[in-house]
Amino acid sequence: MKVIVDFCLVPIGVGVSASKYIVECVRILNGAGLKTNLHAYGTNIEGEWDDVFSAIKCGHERVHEMGVPRISSTIRLGTRTDREQTMEDKIRSVQEKLHGE
Amino acid sequence: MKVIVDFCLVPIGVGVSASKYIVECVRILNGAGLKTNLHAYGTNIEGEWDDVFSAIKCGHERVHEMGVPRISSTIRLGTRTDREQTMEDKIRSVQEKLHGE
Amino acid sequence: MKVIVDFCLVPIGVGVSASKYIVECVRILNGAGLKTNLHAYGTNIEGEWDDVFSAIKCGHERVHEMGVPRISSTIRLGTRTDREQTMEDKIRSVQEKLHGE
Amino acid sequence: MKVIVDFCLVPIGVGVSASKYIVECVRILNGAGLKTNLHAYGTNIEGEWDDVFSAIKCGHERVHEMGVPRISSTIRLGTRTDREQTMEDKIRSVQEKLHGE
Repeated sequence: MKVIVDFCLVPIGVGVSASKYIVECVRILNGAGLKTNLHAYGTNIEGEWDDVFSAIKCGHERVHEMGVPRISSTIRLGTRTDREQTMEDKIRSVQEKLHGE
Repeated sequence: MKVIVDFCLVPIGVGVSASKYIVECVRILNGAGLKTNLHAYGTNIEGEWDDVFSAIKCGHERVHEMGVPRISSTIRLGTRTDREQTMEDKIRSVQEKLHGE
Repeated sequence: MKVIVDFCLVPIGVGVSASKYIVECVRILNGAGLKTNLHAYGTNIEGEWDDVFSAIKCGHERVHEMGVPRISSTIRLGTRTDREQTMEDKIRSVQEKLHGE
Repeated sequence: MKVIVDFCLVPIGVGVSASKYIVECVRILNGAGLKTNLHAYGTNIEGEWDDVFSAIKCGHERVHEMGVPRISSTIRLGTRTDREQTMEDKIRSVQEKLHGE
């Protein structure tokens, strides 16, 4: 089952900066061969369910190893059986309507 | 790695009512031996990472089998390495402060 | 416009414990006359749109005043025009199907 | 109080396609003078708290007027008092670390 996910990790107990932990997660996601796209409040991910959630789990484990005692993440996740759809398809579908009129 | 999760599934393309699909997911979660607690905008889940996400995947698969072409779920997920904490601990920690003064 | 909201506030930069900040938010929400229900990963809120979001804003302001430099919150929010529905209705709708068979 | 928000609207009860409703919301947000950035699972928004939430409310109202009986949205929202930070700052902070090593 393919999923499109939006993943946002918040490290707790290590000050106000999250970027070095997010970088590690993005590396893990990319290293797992997943398509990713970073935005200002999370990361879009596309792939097979097991691959995506296995990489997100690795991200949590790695961030804890880096010394973060507590993590609160949020995930949006979409699956569909009616047709194939990529992250680019989703954006294009909105952009075309937005600029098409 | 233990997780506390808050899971909210939104079926798309099958009318306005979601409850029969949510019921199926809660049954799958409970059937997997996970602790769950239903609220008005999702379900709290506590368990081992792999067990929790395996059950959530089963939930998505089952809801698609029931005829739902598209699902958009949201998940909050918390992990911590500093100490053990249950769902009851989290609620008690707030309730005690709320009523203690 | 009435809304049912699920609100989860994560204070960043002040250690691993969030409960004293959540308590302040719940007091503000209750003080604003909103119906609330606390669970293990957030708080359900029911009320008029402007009242709910005004109280959530007060919560953020108050938590910053308490010394928290950064906050990352997540909100689920539902509106509907087909019929009135309370938080209790939503839970009952699932519980009845869950136990009814 | 400035906020950076990530907003994802899911229309319920009108079939599987959400794009025409999302387009309307993006137009309302842009028309309100807010900075926005569309991604594959939502829209980043930057602005003053009241402006942002007023525009999101307009979005819900407009989507209901278009015939959608039920909407479930999710919002991530970040505020900070330690320093000013834009959406571009957040992305750059991660990108520099990602490519800098």
